[in-house]
Amino acid sequence: MNNPIPKSCFIIFFLSFLTLLSPTQAKTIKPNAPCNRIVLYYHDILFNGTDAANATSVMATNRSSISNFNFGMMVVFDDPMTADGRLLSPAVARAQGFYFYDKKDIFSAWFAYTLVFNSTEYKGTINVIGSDPFLEKTRDLSVVGGTGDFFMARGIVTFETDEIQGDFYFRLKMDIKLYECYKK
Amino acid sequence: MNNPIPKSCFIIFFLSFLTLLSPTQAKTIKPNAPCNRIVLYYHDILFNGTDAANATSVMATNRSSISNFNFGMMVVFDDPMTADGRLLSPAVARAQGFYFYDKKDIFSAWFAYTLVFNSTEYKGTINVIGSDPFLEKTRDLSVVGGTGDFFMARGIVTFETDEIQGDFYFRLKMDIKLYECYKK
Amino acid sequence: MNNPIPKSCFIIFFLSFLTLLSPTQAKTIKPNAPCNRIVLYYHDILFNGTDAANATSVMATNRSSISNFNFGMMVVFDDPMTADGRLLSPAVARAQGFYFYDKKDIFSAWFAYTLVFNSTEYKGTINVIGSDPFLEKTRDLSVVGGTGDFFMARGIVTFETDEIQGDFYFRLKMDIKLYECYKK
Repeated sequence: MNNPIPKSCFIIFFLSFLTLLSPTQAKTIKPNAPCNRIVLYYHDILFNGTDAANATSVMATNRSSISNFNFGMMVVFDDPMTADGRLLSPAVARAQGFYFYDKKDIFSAWFAYTLVFNSTEYKGTINVIGSDPFLEKTRDLSVVGGTGDFFMARGIVTFETDEIQGDFYFRLKMDIKLYECYKK
Repeated sequence: MNNPIPKSCFIIFFLSFLTLLSPTQAKTIKPNAPCNRIVLYYHDILFNGTDAANATSVMATNRSSISNFNFGMMVVFDDPMTADGRLLSPAVARAQGFYFYDKKDIFSAWFAYTLVFNSTEYKGTINVIGSDPFLEKTRDLSVVGGTGDFFMARGIVTFETDEIQGDFYFRLKMDIKLYECYKK
Repeated sequence: MNNPIPKSCFIIFFLSFLTLLSPTQAKTIKPNAPCNRIVLYYHDILFNGTDAANATSVMATNRSSISNFNFGMMVVFDDPMTADGRLLSPAVARAQGFYFYDKKDIFSAWFAYTLVFNSTEYKGTINVIGSDPFLEKTRDLSVVGGTGDFFMARGIVTFETDEIQGDFYFRLKMDIKLYECYKK
């Protein structure tokens, strides 16, 4: 071993390096193995004209006259997120953002919001956008960024409707799966 | 070869590892070599007060009185995406989201939407946001996430205006280039 | 050295490869070592009913009657970004997008916008979304994508309120820190 580093090893290093530099190669992620996972329940109480004290969301725009499915109606919310499905459980985070109804002939929505955590367990935010065709059993939206304990996070939020009471209360199970986690 | 793994190789491994851990190093991506590319045409038929049957979008807010360029006017859409430029071709995806006009003195818009695929070829969504200064020939927006077949995707959508007919129909060519693709 | 590449090196290569394929492993990023950093000042002059010439933003929706904190009020803006805190300094970029007030009982906002650069230094866009609880000294939002010179960028924008003058002018210091930078 008079040669401290065999040339063959440089070839290996070069191959490893090429692997790093090949951006068009599809990377593999196991959807059932997120680096962090949090399941929370979202409670939306839309102001119905009388119960201002309990309302957590308000209509910002009216639905279009051409649709019976609220097409064009936008709602701004500041909704509690609880660890179980009970509305009166302590909120472990807030969901702040908006949704609007986005189809003329069936019910469907589109969401953009921030999950704001300020608990002993987590401090920071998770930013989410995506379509919510809520007549389907489950829907996937995108985690597009995060801050604080969720610095630079990416992933998927799976929505599942847990309860609907008339026009003014609904509850979603949000299964938050992060596939990109960073340590600071 | 009494030493099964030469020490020199550990040095190489350590160097490879350092390369992985250097996040501030700019990574190289070739814009002309996306890992997936889809070109589709977006058709927006804004409700004009009479043709509710064909309309695919509605005004959610009015333009401001201080602008002749629709500043502040927001439109919610559920628009067909076709593989060619013909409105009546079969839709291979839907674009669901909103745009609004964002300049006082010239025409310009801002988009956020989800491309919803439910075909034999693709199932899943692509989430897009960005500015659309549509007087320019081409405009780039960001693919910020995806689900299903587009799980965790990132990339660029290049808009090019293909047709404008008065205030109530326009067609965009959307050249969707993904540079981060993941296998599940 | 009759064997051109020792088997041991293949083991090393395989280990390196495994490292690449382990997506659930948290990656390390140093928040104080961004790959690009730009500090700019955002000036928002909301149309107050009289000063259309200077206004850079307009109300798209009204606040809800159930809140004294503008809950539900949405503002569309096309705001100048300056390198120092002076409103009349030359704009080095525009911020185009919207914010709305998202809490019933205190002041807080939610932003989505595009920073549009068209200077000798930078050409391209940076897309940002996130919550802005602006009673706090600093707030972090997410850079979720970019185009042009900011192709595929990700990072954090830290907001700090620099000035508030009544309801119709405020100025934010935006500290833009990119942690994913790409060369084309």
